[in-house]
Parts: sequence; C-alpha cells; structure tokens
Amino acid sequence: MLRQRGEVETHLVLTKPAERTIVEETDWKPDDVRALASVVHSPADIGASIASGSFQTMGMVVLPCSINSVASIAYCQADNLLTRAADVMLKERRKLVLVVRETPFHRGHLKAMLEATEAGAIIMPPIPAFYGRPKTIDDIVNHTVGRVLDLFDIENDLLKRWGE
Amino acid sequence: MLRQRGEVETHLVLTKPAERTIVEETDWKPDDVRALASVVHSPADIGASIASGSFQTMGMVVLPCSINSVASIAYCQADNLLTRAADVMLKERRKLVLVVRETPFHRGHLKAMLEATEAGAIIMPPIPAFYGRPKTIDDIVNHTVGRVLDLFDIENDLLKRWGE
Amino acid sequence: MLRQRGEVETHLVLTKPAERTIVEETDWKPDDVRALASVVHSPADIGASIASGSFQTMGMVVLPCSINSVASIAYCQADNLLTRAADVMLKERRKLVLVVRETPFHRGHLKAMLEATEAGAIIMPPIPAFYGRPKTIDDIVNHTVGRVLDLFDIENDLLKRWGE
Amino acid sequence: MLRQRGEVETHLVLTKPAERTIVEETDWKPDDVRALASVVHSPADIGASIASGSFQTMGMVVLPCSINSVASIAYCQADNLLTRAADVMLKERRKLVLVVRETPFHRGHLKAMLEATEAGAIIMPPIPAFYGRPKTIDDIVNHTVGRVLDLFDIENDLLKRWGE
Amino acid sequence: MLRQRGEVETHLVLTKPAERTIVEETDWKPDDVRALASVVHSPADIGASIASGSFQTMGMVVLPCSINSVASIAYCQADNLLTRAADVMLKERRKLVLVVRETPFHRGHLKAMLEATEAGAIIMPPIPAFYGRPKTIDDIVNHTVGRVLDLFDIENDLLKRWGE
Amino acid sequence: MLRQRGEVETHLVLTKPAERTIVEETDWKPDDVRALASVVHSPADIGASIASGSFQTMGMVVLPCSINSVASIAYCQADNLLTRAADVMLKERRKLVLVVRETPFHRGHLKAMLEATEAGAIIMPPIPAFYGRPKTIDDIVNHTVGRVLDLFDIENDLLKRWGE
Amino acid sequence: MLRQRGEVETHLVLTKPAERTIVEETDWKPDDVRALASVVHSPADIGASIASGSFQTMGMVVLPCSINSVASIAYCQADNLLTRAADVMLKERRKLVLVVRETPFHRGHLKAMLEATEAGAIIMPPIPAFYGRPKTIDDIVNHTVGRVLDLFDIENDLLKRWGE
Amino acid sequence: MLRQRGEVETHLVLTKPAERTIVEETDWKPDDVRALASVVHSPADIGASIASGSFQTMGMVVLPCSINSVASIAYCQADNLLTRAADVMLKERRKLVLVVRETPFHRGHLKAMLEATEAGAIIMPPIPAFYGRPKTIDDIVNHTVGRVLDLFDIENDLLKRWGE
Amino acid sequence: MLRQRGEVETHLVLTKPAERTIVEETDWKPDDVRALASVVHSPADIGASIASGSFQTMGMVVLPCSINSVASIAYCQADNLLTRAADVMLKERRKLVLVVRETPFHRGHLKAMLEATEAGAIIMPPIPAFYGRPKTIDDIVNHTVGRVLDLFDIENDLLKRWGE
Amino acid sequence: MLRQRGEVETHLVLTKPAERTIVEETDWKPDDVRALASVVHSPADIGASIASGSFQTMGMVVLPCSINSVASIAYCQADNLLTRAADVMLKERRKLVLVVRETPFHRGHLKAMLEATEAGAIIMPPIPAFYGRPKTIDDIVNHTVGRVLDLFDIENDLLKRWGE
Amino acid sequence: MLRQRGEVETHLVLTKPAERTIVEETDWKPDDVRALASVVHSPADIGASIASGSFQTMGMVVLPCSINSVASIAYCQADNLLTRAADVMLKERRKLVLVVRETPFHRGHLKAMLEATEAGAIIMPPIPAFYGRPKTIDDIVNHTVGRVLDLFDIENDLLKRWGE
Amino acid sequence: MLRQRGEVETHLVLTKPAERTIVEETDWKPDDVRALASVVHSPADIGASIASGSFQTMGMVVLPCSINSVASIAYCQADNLLTRAADVMLKERRKLVLVVRETPFHRGHLKAMLEATEAGAIIMPPIPAFYGRPKTIDDIVNHTVGRVLDLFDIENDLLKRWGE
Repeated sequence: MLRQRGEVETHLVLTKPAERTIVEETDWKPDDVRALASVVHSPADIGASIASGSFQTMGMVVLPCSINSVASIAYCQADNLLTRAADVMLKERRKLVLVVRETPFHRGHLKAMLEATEAGAIIMPPIPAFYGRPKTIDDIVNHTVGRVLDLFDIENDLLKRWGE
Repeated sequence: MLRQRGEVETHLVLTKPAERTIVEETDWKPDDVRALASVVHSPADIGASIASGSFQTMGMVVLPCSINSVASIAYCQADNLLTRAADVMLKERRKLVLVVRETPFHRGHLKAMLEATEAGAIIMPPIPAFYGRPKTIDDIVNHTVGRVLDLFDIENDLLKRWGE
Repeated sequence: MLRQRGEVETHLVLTKPAERTIVEETDWKPDDVRALASVVHSPADIGASIASGSFQTMGMVVLPCSINSVASIAYCQADNLLTRAADVMLKERRKLVLVVRETPFHRGHLKAMLEATEAGAIIMPPIPAFYGRPKTIDDIVNHTVGRVLDLFDIENDLLKRWGE
Repeated sequence: MLRQRGEVETHLVLTKPAERTIVEETDWKPDDVRALASVVHSPADIGASIASGSFQTMGMVVLPCSINSVASIAYCQADNLLTRAADVMLKERRKLVLVVRETPFHRGHLKAMLEATEAGAIIMPPIPAFYGRPKTIDDIVNHTVGRVLDLFDIENDLLKRWGE
Repeated sequence: MLRQRGEVETHLVLTKPAERTIVEETDWKPDDVRALASVVHSPADIGASIASGSFQTMGMVVLPCSINSVASIAYCQADNLLTRAADVMLKERRKLVLVVRETPFHRGHLKAMLEATEAGAIIMPPIPAFYGRPKTIDDIVNHTVGRVLDLFDIENDLLKRWGE
Repeated sequence: MLRQRGEVETHLVLTKPAERTIVEETDWKPDDVRALASVVHSPADIGASIASGSFQTMGMVVLPCSINSVASIAYCQADNLLTRAADVMLKERRKLVLVVRETPFHRGHLKAMLEATEAGAIIMPPIPAFYGRPKTIDDIVNHTVGRVLDLFDIENDLLKRWGE
Repeated sequence: MLRQRGEVETHLVLTKPAERTIVEETDWKPDDVRALASVVHSPADIGASIASGSFQTMGMVVLPCSINSVASIAYCQADNLLTRAADVMLKERRKLVLVVRETPFHRGHLKAMLEATEAGAIIMPPIPAFYGRPKTIDDIVNHTVGRVLDLFDIENDLLKRWGE
Repeated sequence: MLRQRGEVETHLVLTKPAERTIVEETDWKPDDVRALASVVHSPADIGASIASGSFQTMGMVVLPCSINSVASIAYCQADNLLTRAADVMLKERRKLVLVVRETPFHRGHLKAMLEATEAGAIIMPPIPAFYGRPKTIDDIVNHTVGRVLDLFDIENDLLKRWGE
Repeated sequence: MLRQRGEVETHLVLTKPAERTIVEETDWKPDDVRALASVVHSPADIGASIASGSFQTMGMVVLPCSINSVASIAYCQADNLLTRAADVMLKERRKLVLVVRETPFHRGHLKAMLEATEAGAIIMPPIPAFYGRPKTIDDIVNHTVGRVLDLFDIENDLLKRWGE
Repeated sequence: MLRQRGEVETHLVLTKPAERTIVEETDWKPDDVRALASVVHSPADIGASIASGSFQTMGMVVLPCSINSVASIAYCQADNLLTRAADVMLKERRKLVLVVRETPFHRGHLKAMLEATEAGAIIMPPIPAFYGRPKTIDDIVNHTVGRVLDLFDIENDLLKRWGE
Repeated sequence: MLRQRGEVETHLVLTKPAERTIVEETDWKPDDVRALASVVHSPADIGASIASGSFQTMGMVVLPCSINSVASIAYCQADNLLTRAADVMLKERRKLVLVVRETPFHRGHLKAMLEATEAGAIIMPPIPAFYGRPKTIDDIVNHTVGRVLDLFDIENDLLKRWGE
Repeated sequence: MLRQRGEVETHLVLTKPAERTIVEETDWKPDDVRALASVVHSPADIGASIASGSFQTMGMVVLPCSINSVASIAYCQADNLLTRAADVMLKERRKLVLVVRETPFHRGHLKAMLEATEAGAIIMPPIPAFYGRPKTIDDIVNHTVGRVLDLFDIENDLLKRWGE
C-alpha cells in the first residue's frame, strides 16, 4: 500500500478489515481512500502487478498493520495480495515498512516482529511524539506519516523536525 | 513510577530525562507531577524502600519508558532506583509494565523487549486507539493510562470499553 | 469458546470445523451447543466484544483445539474471532487453555505448542485418565472438562479426585 | 497432489491458485489435469480420506509448491486439504516432497524451508539440469518429475541418468 | 514393551510403576500381561538381549509412557532396561514410539518431547478419536493400539479406518 | 515439602539425603522435622495425594534443594515423590520455590536453573542478607524462611523489613 | 564474476569446475566465455584486484553457484579468488548474488544458505518461470539472467515483465 | 566408499590421506584395497557416477573418516568426490555412515558431528567392544565392520551377537 | 577487589555502593577496608594499572558482587574501574570470581550469569555451608572467603575441610 | 563522531574517555579536535539534533570505539549522546561504523559485536594493512580513515588502492 | 575413578555396572581393581571426601564412561558418588575426562556430550590408534590410558609417541 | 607456528599465502623467516610431529591469521598442517592464539571467531596500541608480539607496560 503523494505512482490494497477500520475509526468511506490511489488492487488478486518481482517499485507501506499481517509476513503466509506483495518486497530487497498497531505485546508478537525485522522489514509502531507539542489528533497522525515518508527519503513537511 | 489513584499509595521515581520530558512535552513542571505521588524517591537513592524485595507492592509502571530503560531492565543494568525497583518486581514475580516510547524498532530494540518479556515484564507501547473516536490528545493519553490500570485490575473509566 | 457453567457468563465461538466435528462425532447439533452459551459470536465477527482487550474476561478455553488453531495462536495468525480472542487473552495476560486433539506429534506440532506455551497458553491434551476407573466414555469426557475447570479454579465435581 | 503413474492410485487436490497457474502457464485446463488422477478431492474437503492418518498412502508431492504452502506446512497452518494432508504425511512419518517454486529467497523463506525439513519434508526446487543437454522445455519438466519419482523409488525413464 | 501380536516375537519390560498402573487402572494383574509376551525381561537386567545394538528388532513401543520415561530417553538417562533399550532403538535408527500419558504439558515436558523427537522418537499421546463413534472405553484403547501398529506397518483391524 | 505454619495444612516429603542433612548439619532428628508437618509422605510413594494434579495445593517449597533436584525438575526426571510433586506444581501452574544450595555454579547448573525458571519455578538461593544486622545464624535462617513465605503471600515476621 | 553488459566493466573468475560445466552442459568453450569479460582472473590469484576491499565494484554474481561455493562463502572458507572476492563483497556491504543450482536441499544446504543470507548474500536459485510462456530453453536462461540484472538495478529486456 | 561384500556392487574412493593411512597403519598397499572394489573412482573426479543423484545406490560408508571429512560434509564443503558423494547421499535421503576416528573431541568436533547428524548422517566411531572377548586386533576391526553392515541390513557374521 | 592475604599484593576498588554496604551492613568504615589493601584505586580511574592487560595479576574477586556488576561484566558495560578490570581478566584469560549476592533469581539474572560464565567468569554465590556446624556469622563469612582463596589455590585455614 | 571532510557538515561528540585518549595517545588537545568539526555536541546533551530521528544524516562513525561503546550500542544502553545517536542510526537504517579498538577478544566481546552487526552496524577494527608498505604510523592511521570514508562512498586518497 | 599410578594418591568409585563390566569383559575381578586404588569409595556414599569441593584433587577420569554417566553429568543428575564427584570437578574448575564408550551416536548423545564439554569436561572416546602398529589388544588399551595420563600431564610411556 | 624466542624450541609452518605475504609486505624473504625457527614443516606434511596429540607443545600462534584460517579452525576444515596442528591444540586443551588480520568484519567472520573462541582459541587481532606513543611501525609490531608472548607467560620486554 503506497501512500499517495505528488508525483509518486501509488498502488493501494484495501483488505476487508482495513475497510472496516476506515468505517469504524474515521469519517471516511473506503472509496474515499481508494480515490487517493493511482491504482487500486483487490486483495484477492494474487496475480496483480505488485505481486510480481519483475514489477519495479520503491517499496511498500502497510499502514495500519495488524499483528496478524506482521506475522503473516514474518512466517511467509502470503495468501492475499497484501502479504504476497510484502513478501515480494523482502525477496527483492526493497523497503517494507509495517506500521504495527497493537498493544500490549506478548512474546509471540515480539517474536514475529523480530522475524520480520531479520527478513528485512522495518517495524514502525505509530507511537505519538509529543516533543512537537501536537495540538490535534491530526498532528499526531501526520507526524507518523511524515516519519514513514522519511524512511523512503521522500521530502515532506508533515513532520516537525528538530530545531523547527 | 506508580500512578496515583484514589486509595492506592503511590511511589514516584522521576529520573533526569523524565524531568526534561515533562518540561519539553507538557505544560506541567516536575514538581506538579511529584505533588501527585504519595511518596517521592530520588533516582539515586538505591536504598529506598522500593528497592527492597521485603517491601510489599502491587507492581510498577514505567511511563513513559525509554528504550534505554527497557534494555537496562532486560540486561539487569540496575544502576539507579528506577531500574533497581523494576528488577525487584521481576525477581519477586510482581507486575511490571513498561510503556515503551520508541519508533521505529531495530533488531536490538526487539531483542531487548523480548528478553524483558521473558523475564516477566509487560511491554505496552502507548499506541493510540481510534475505535473510540478520540476527540483530543487527552483522550488518547487517558486511553493508554486506562489500559495500564486495567492490567493491574484497578477499576477505571478512562478507557472507552467495547459496547459503550 | 467458553464452557457454560452455573453463574459464569459464557461466550461461544463455533467455527465451521467445530460444527462439522459436532455433527460427525456426537449426537448433538451445533444449535444444541449454541443454546448452552450465554452469548454466541460468529467466527467471522472480528469486532466482537471478546476481540477487544478492554472487555474483561476470566480467560478462554479452546475445546477441542485443532493443531491448526494452536499454531495460528502460536504464530499470531489471528484471522478469525477464535484466534483473535485467544491472542487477546495472551496479550492481556489472562488464562488460555488449549485442549489439543492431535496424535502423533511431529516436530512442527511440538514447536508450535512450545511457542504457544512460552507466550502464556496452557496446552492440555484430553488424555484419558484411568486411575478413576471410568465406566463410560462420558466419564472420560467429564474428567477432561473437570481438569479444565480446575485450571480456572472453578469448583466442580466432574473430576474424581485423589482419595475419593 | 499425487502424480498419476501406471499402477499407482493417485489422489489429486487442486487449489484455486493451482487452477490459475494451469491456465496461465500451460495449454491445459484444470479439468484435463483432474482427468489424470484416480481420485479428485476438493481443497475445502478437510474430511477427505487423505486428511486421515488412518488412510494409508506412500506419501505426497506438492508440485508446484508456493512458498505460502511450504510455510503453511512448516508452521502447521493446515487450513485446507492440501496442507492438512501434508501435515498428516509428516505426523505419520511418510514421504512429503515440496517442489518449491520461488526465487530469490529471503531469510523468512529459508527459515520456513528449514523448519519443514526438520519436520521431515523434502524441499526440492525444480532447478533445471543441463548436464543431459535438454532440447525442449518438456525435457526440463520431465527431468524434475523423474527426480520426484526417484525419491519415491518409482522406476521411470523420465530422467536421463548418469552414463546414458 | 513390545505388544504381542500373531507371528511377531514380543519382548516385554514391565517397570515397577507399570505394575502399579496395571493394578490400579485395570482388572488385570501384572502376570496376566507378562503371559502375553514371548519374552519377559526384568527392568534391572541392563545386559538383556534388547539392550544390545547387535540384537535385531523391528522397534519398540513404550505404552503407556510417563513423562519421566520420555525425559529419560530424551536426555539419555538410560539407567534401567526400558530406557536403555529405547536408547538402542535411537542409535540403531529403529522405530521408537512413546505413548505419552500426561496432561497438561508445561514447557519442560514440551522441550523433552521435542528433544526425543529430534533424536528420532515418535511421540504419540493416546488421545481418543471420536470420529469412529466409540461405544466403550475398549474401543478407545483399541484405536490407540491400532494406530501404534499402523506406525510399524503391522496390519490390524483395531482401528476404524476412513470410509468404513 | 510445605513448611508448617499456623493454619496452613502442610505436607512433608523427606528424602534420604534430606535426612542425612538434618543429622549432619543440625541438632534435630528427622522425626523432629516430621512431627512439624500435617501430613508426611514417603519419597517412594509416587501415588501420594500431592503427586496428583487433582489434589489442590497452594504450591510447594524445596528447602534446601540440591542441584540434583533442581536438574531433575528442570529435565523432568520425576522419579520420586519430591520431583513428581514439583512437576505437578509446574503443569498445574502453581507456585514452586527451589531454595538451591550449591556454590560455585558451573555452566550446567546455570542452564538447569534457567530451564527450571522457564518452566515456571522460582530459584531462590538462601543467600544471607546482612542489611538487617543478623546476630545469630538463626537470624539468617529465619530471614530466608521469611522470604519464602513472602513469595506465597503468607504474612510473617521472620523477616526484618525495610524501615523496621 | 560480473556478467558482461554494455558499459559495465566486467571481471571474470572461471573455476575448474566451471570450465567443466561449460564443456559438459553447453556448446561453448571456456575461452568463449572468457572473451566476453573485460578482465579475466585466475581462480588461484588470491592477490587480484577484486580480492581487495579497496578496489571498488558494484557487486558480484556467482552463476551458476554450486552448494560447495555457497557453503564456502557462508563459512568463510575463502581459499580461492571466487570465494575471497565474495567475502570482500560481504565485508564491504556490496551486493552478492548466488545463483544456487542444487536440488533437493538437505538441512545442511538450507543452513548454509541461511548463514550466507544473514551475512548479506542473496540466494537466487535459477527456477524457471512459466508465466511468460517460454518457448525455448534460452528463454528460461534469459529470464534468470534478467532477474539477476534487476537485482543490480541494471536495465534490461531479458525478462518478460508483468503486463507485457 | 562402499565396502566390498558378496553380491553387492562396491564403489571405492581412496583419498590421498587414505592412501597414506593404509601405508602407515596396515600391511596393505593402496592397490590391494582398490582390488577389492567393483569400481574405483579418483577423488578428483567430481563428475563420477556416484556424484550424481540420478545414480542409484544403497548408501555410503566413510571408513575411517577424519574429523576433517565429517566437518566438510556437515558444512557442505564438497570439493572432492568423497565429500560430494556424501552430500548426494544426504540430499537423496540415503544412508551415510561416518566412522569417525578422532579423540579427544573438542567443542568444534561435537558441533560438526551434531550438524552432520541433523542432516541425516550416522556418526559411528570405531570404539572397540570387549563384551565379545576379542582375542586379536582383527576381532576388533571385524566387529566394527560388522556393525556398519548391520546398519545397512546386510547380513554378516563378523559381529559376535548377543547370546552367541 | 583483591583480598588482602599475607605475601600477596592486593589492589582494591571500592565502589560507591560498596562503601554504602560497608556502612549499612558491618561495623567497619570504608577506610578500615582500604587500609587492608596494598594499593587502593578510585573506581573512576579507568586508566589505573589493573585496567591494562599488560599489568600482570593472578586474577580478581568481586565480593560482594551485585547483579548489576555481574550483568555489566557479562554484557561488557565496562564503564568504571571495577568492570573494566574484570573485563581485562576475561580477555587475558585470568581468573575472575564473582560472589553474587542476589535472591531470588529471575530469568534475566540467570541469563547474565550464564553469559558471564561462558566468557570465563566463576559465579560463586555466598551460600552458607552448615556441614561444618558454624557457630557464628563470622564462621559463615570465613567459609565463603576460604572457598574463594581455594579457587585461586591460595592455602588457607578459613575453611573447615572434609574430615577435619 | 563524524569526521571532518571538505564539503560534508560534521558533528562531533567527544566523550570524557575520548578526551583522555587524545591527551594520552596523541600530541593534540581535545580542543584541537573540536576545532575540526562543523558542530560540537556535549555527550550529556541527549536532546541534541543528532539524537533525533527527524534530523537527517549520512550516518555516523565512532572512532576509536571502546568495547564498552560497542556493547552499549548492541544492548541499547543509550545513556549518553554518543550511544543515543548511534541508536538513532540503527533505527533509521543509516550507516554506523564502529572502529573497535580492543584485543584480545573474549566471548562477550564477540557476542556484543555480533549483536551490533545483526542490528545493522559495521564493526571495523583498525587493523593495520602492510600491503601498501606504510612508512610511518601516520600512513597506518590514514589507511584506516580512508577505509572508513570508503564505506560512506566519500572519495578520498588516504588509502593506497590496489594497483597503485 | 582415578587410575593408580606411582606417587599419585588414587580414589576409586566402582559402580554396579562397572563391576558387571569387569566380570563380563576382562579376566579380572572387581576386587582386583579395587586393590589398585589408594582409597575405595562406595558409589552410594554421597558424603565421601571426593564429593566435597573442599577436598583437593588433580581431577577425575571416568573410564569407561557410559553414555548414561555422560548425560547425568551434562544434565546435573548427580545422584551417586561418581556423578556427584564429577559435578564437583566441574564447579571447582578441575579436570574431568570422560572416556565415553558408545557407538553409534544419536543426536541425544551428541547433545549431551556437547553440554558436558561446554561445562568443562573432556570427552575422550577410546578410539584405537593404529599408527603405532599395535600388536595386541593390550597395546590398544595402554594407548588410551596413556592419552588420559597425558591430559593430566602425568609422564608415562604407555603411549607410542611421534617419532619413536 | 611458534615464534622463535631464546630457549624455546620453535616449529614453523609457512603456508603459500604466508610466503606471499612476506614478499609483498616486508623486506624479508620466506627463507629468512624459516631460518629463525628450530624446526620447519611443510604445510602439506599432515603427518608431521605437531599434527599428533602425542607430541607435547606449549601451544601455537597463527600470526598473521587470515579469516580463512580462523574459519577453517572454527569449522574443523583441517586440511593442511597449519589447521591440523591448530585442531590438535584445541583437542588437547593447549593454548591457541589467532592473530586475525581482517577488517571490516561481516556477520560470518564474527560467527567463525565466536565458534573458534568457544572451542578454546584466543582471537587476538593486531590492533595497534597508542598509549605507549609508538614512534615506528616496528614499535607497533613489537607490541603485538609482546602481547602474544604474554598470553603464553613468556617474559619479554617488547611490550611497554603500565607505569613504565
């Protein structure tokens, strides 16, 4: 799931639980999110472009990423397009950022995140930063998105940087 | 650092970095925080009551908890009162909750959290929950505090529960 | 799947394979089993109360528990309500009993049970006890159920105890 | 998926992705493949003969075998007939050959193949052999099939042997 | 303890706890069991035929097998004839089936069973199968014995097979 | 071996080496110790109440505990009542405290204590505390006993607490 | 061994077994291959440019790569120029692609590939892709070469890409 | 190196150190040994029949086997015909017996033998058995050879069996 | 901290917590202890003689040794003279005895002691021996000191030996 | 500690031990070194720019790097600016080069370096290269600095390259 | 079991299986062996001198050593004088040589020998050396005894040395 | 390779790469080095005195030691006299010092050094010490040689010691 941003072509995979999350946690509808992407893939479409190592990409972000998805990636349970595309990132040594949203962690969670990390993924829980004195929940969300873009070396001003 | 709540006697250890965090990230002063605790200990006071296994407690929360503190606890580097008291919780098999604030995680972070978990600690990063449709940053903070109290079976209404 | 018993509120998740097992192995129908529970959840309802850490429970029993479910819990493949609720038990440090029905074990089975145990689950295969001189198959089944209740400190007389 | 050959009774499980593979990569239709087997099972039929340890077989081949299937077998995620039957092979200590078709490997792939191997499976990627100077792609495919039959000690002349 | 069956020569080792188990859990006497075996060895007779790798056997079953015996075999504590003979099976790469009767498992049990499995033993807990709709406790016991014989490829009709 | 204390029913298992220790290291006789217990079991009585998971207890203390006993528990060598009862504590997830008396430790000792700890036991060597300024050897012994009782949440004044 | 391609300077190390492979499996002669490289090194020339970390390269491909070479690299047995140069790639954190040609894998093979991967190498077995409907064996070979070039971000049209 | 025996076709690989051993430790000459084999291969002949998985064999014995050869097999350093053929045995899951002649063992030796064992080899040091009251050194050697033949289920009378 | 004894030159490092321990637990003052040493170093003096591998010593004792110091040595956190000198002992393969005073142990403690042991240290908790029928607390302390001297092969009569 | 070089902005952290090293081992004064950096930070200034992931850098070099610093980084003991900034490099997946100056290594040292490497650091001990026939100690030092710059792809002529 | 030799005081522990071995495999009687020792201990005498760390010895040899004894030492099952004395050797860091007589090895044997080695023991199987051209079985036995004495630096001429 | 020094008898093994190193990096010729040794062995002479455990030595130094040699020793690839003699040191528990000259380290290097260390070797990279203010490259080399001699307790004045 590549976030839409300016000149970058973005591909979106929206799983069923992701749709449910949008409805329950935001004022958006799934189609609003879909409208932001350059290309939208069905999670069932295992044969989509992004499931092929021969299709060139900068990398992939899973945001938010359930512990279930982290573990599916860590243990190679690539049975939908999301986890298959993530698996391709790892085998082609491209960047894969997993914005894990789970708390607290039990040992199994940490083990799965460790395995994913050792396979090359970057585990980035969306922990709010308060040093920038966020005023709204949007500030918190933007900070996390900014950190993700930073990891891809995509310039952005979503993030309050040191000294600003 | 035990949170103050009603009839519970709370003991507070405020480290230097914690003081700095209060000043930089909130509108409080360290002494405002200290005023909330039943007992305040200096981080240098290795001989304080809470550093002794013979002093009875329900457990301990480190909130927020730097990755440095997690690792000090995981690898038994108990050189101040905070980490010594945490070590006592583990050896006496009492509850120890570490509200880890770090992102992204590298392998060393995950390894340290795994070791701490295997020694009995509970790693609980303060990841915001959006299902309750928080309106303010305070809602987010309260939710995390409520989850911590839940782990100690202390009744509270800080947390929006399922079905409410 | 929480067993019904007296004053305890029980919640039931009946998976497709569980329904099939009831039909093939007993004289009951799935609805007969459902009628025994206080609350019945659909396995697909990931958003049910018991999938939330904020919903308070004594713990959970999976009975019978396929090796597939043990492994899904051990490796965090929480993609239905049964495994999601089990994952919640582990992260909230509540009791989780898995009545594993598989034989013989290969190395992968033992590895999965070991991982589940290290994450906090209790593996309890329904091995018949003969010291009580069971007369019927019901005696055997009751003994297993009694042992499960014992693990939750729920008084019961299903189990023939030492010296009786 | 047991290959059809002479006097051997073969059982076939054709998963959805396998059907897709047949259509996309060969001139066959799924039913052409099904016609070659003695018995055809639906992948959803968890209760089929081959899912029972009491049903006697020589072993099983998964050809081609996605990394997803390898990992499901390695980590006991036996949720369809293919992986359940494979699990039965391992617990009954029968032969299980996995013709893994994936490249390159990331660490997670190798870990999963290692776990499967330690549980008793044989990982056999269909790497073409050129020492026999194959003329056509069929020669390459036949060589792989011959090697699989060899592992089951089934005589065959698909394979160009040393000195021929 | 090799089960008596038709043309197979069986050797029996009956330990003290096994004798006690027979008395407490069945209507048999130890001598009734001994009468079924071709050859009976004293558990103290470390120098018996079956303790020598040069004595040829099909393999060995320990039924029932305490967790103590599993662990003695796993950790090479071969101090009586039962565990010594089991050790010989493993070093000569013959079949060794351990019908472990223990529940629940703690981590040490699983570790011991894992070690035994990695050394070549087959852990087979006597978990009752209900798919055959057993009527009596004997049906349950016979099913387990049938599964053991199956592992040695000894034909038998103790086991209700798929489709029967 | 449960220590006698007020209203608690205590069960005692006195092994041969324990009897020898009493005679060699104290002015007591084994029978003096036996007289303190509510119930006395022979170490050979594998079938005693405390060897059964169905018999309910608060937990168990082994005091003093030889490295041999720690290792027997860690590696499941449960061949007398002491180690069998300890094994039951672990599988029923009750408290087990091992007052290990050995020094120095070699790697094997530490490994065994680590395994026991990971299975749920608490290793508590009787290291004298001097902060209470003990006057006699009895003070030292009482302090250790007090710490043990503390681990079971049994009130006692054997222990000089912080601030007293 | 860098494949020759347009403007890239390529260095070739042709081991004895590689020469044999060329003769046995292709219509080429070793010198034909050598003629394609910018620079040719003798495998015995441990002191060649590419054996020095100070000599700058994009990376290295071993194609085909015997399991012997994988293991020599994994376990640092750098006793000829091929393995020495590969070792340099790893220590300078440059790209190293190993086109492993072996099947089936035993545990030792998988272990060696895992070690090599953890040291930074990319294991890429030349598994034929059929989705592009290859017509000839050359199509299969070109596909593999194209995948290798992709890993170095060298544009090429050897590979049939998704959607073409 | 397959031992010559009656109707079995034997293939011999005699390495340089093996030749030296024959000369130094026996009254034989290397050619005397070669004369006993059906087929003799040069250790440098990596392309010999026995180096190919497609060439069918019962298995292989390395006798005597230096720790160097054990380790080469364990760590896949298959750079001569002996170790290559051994590697083929392991990947084709055939029998491989390594008669290791080294003493004492350091940790590296044990680690290598453990790896080889986990890959499927049988480590069989030629430890003399005295229970048969050997009279000559030949008796001792024959006993070892008899044990090797036993492992291949080749009948022989070199070994004094139990009860003889 | 080298104990003073007759003709041996002793060097003393007295940390801040050690000073506090002397005051709280004994009737001595830190300077009384310092007066016993041949040379006294400040714990902050990282550049002292004993921090250099080139300065020759018999070894080192840390008595008493906090779990914090054990772990600092085990995990190479050599940030004061005590831990730096201990690190030198290990790298120069000299004797290092750590008289660990902590109880009970949690998993982290045991892990740290295991790591220290594997790096060459000797963990020697000051567990009192009662076989010598100590009369006073001094007898207990002397016994421990005698055992330490024994480990350095320094003759002493502090220890009641067998048969005395 | 970022080395000063041409157009690159360098940030310097000079710890207390580093100052001491400068004075003891060179003819420089700490301020001479500070004068070479673009920005100088106090080691106590945990809140400096380089301690924030949001501050963008090429990477970081610790030169020389004590084993204490390696271990602090490996085990996440980030309690001063040096180790905190190093931790940031690892979590942001930037380059971190540790010029470890310690010899000989004990097991704990190697373990710490392995952990640091697995977290992404590059361990580069300043081992002198003699192939360039250095004339002075400065030649040796420059070679090491040149190798470090090479790792950051910063062109330099400090290093005598192959063929020069 | 310390071998008798000249001026060295030897202590002998002769277990029951050892006595049986003497009778079955040699022309000696147990008392003949006992007569060679300076001191003879009963294996049941756990309180003998050699079971105490305070009793000073050069070390200990177990010859021959069953795999049972190796494993008892490796896993700290010190329940007779032989294994208790061996345990003392390891904790006091004295020499312990185990002349293991077992073949072939299974994985459990190798694991136990590895654990024993890591705890400090020396595993020395009595493998006959033929380079000295032994004439009799005594030559072979003497060679092994000579190698043991060498490990203790006890001069002897039992061993044919290089160049003799 | 034992360094020449006064009254010590030294044996030298000069491998081919060592000869090349002498020529490329120093003004010496291989024969100049050979002239310094008491005895010179050919690296191919596997049967030399120092390859036999029965030949008594103080230990062995490999200086300089390539990572290839470290790994050959760690993984028991003892195929020339150098690595065979090193293997003998380890199995006879004599001192083995490996002056490893490699930088930077990748994970495989560290793993090999860790394995070698755990088998008993001492890894001692020749890192220059500057505290003695070396004036020339010879000072640096002498310091390293002095440290090696120190490890063998051979008095020397090559090393500037503390306080000098």
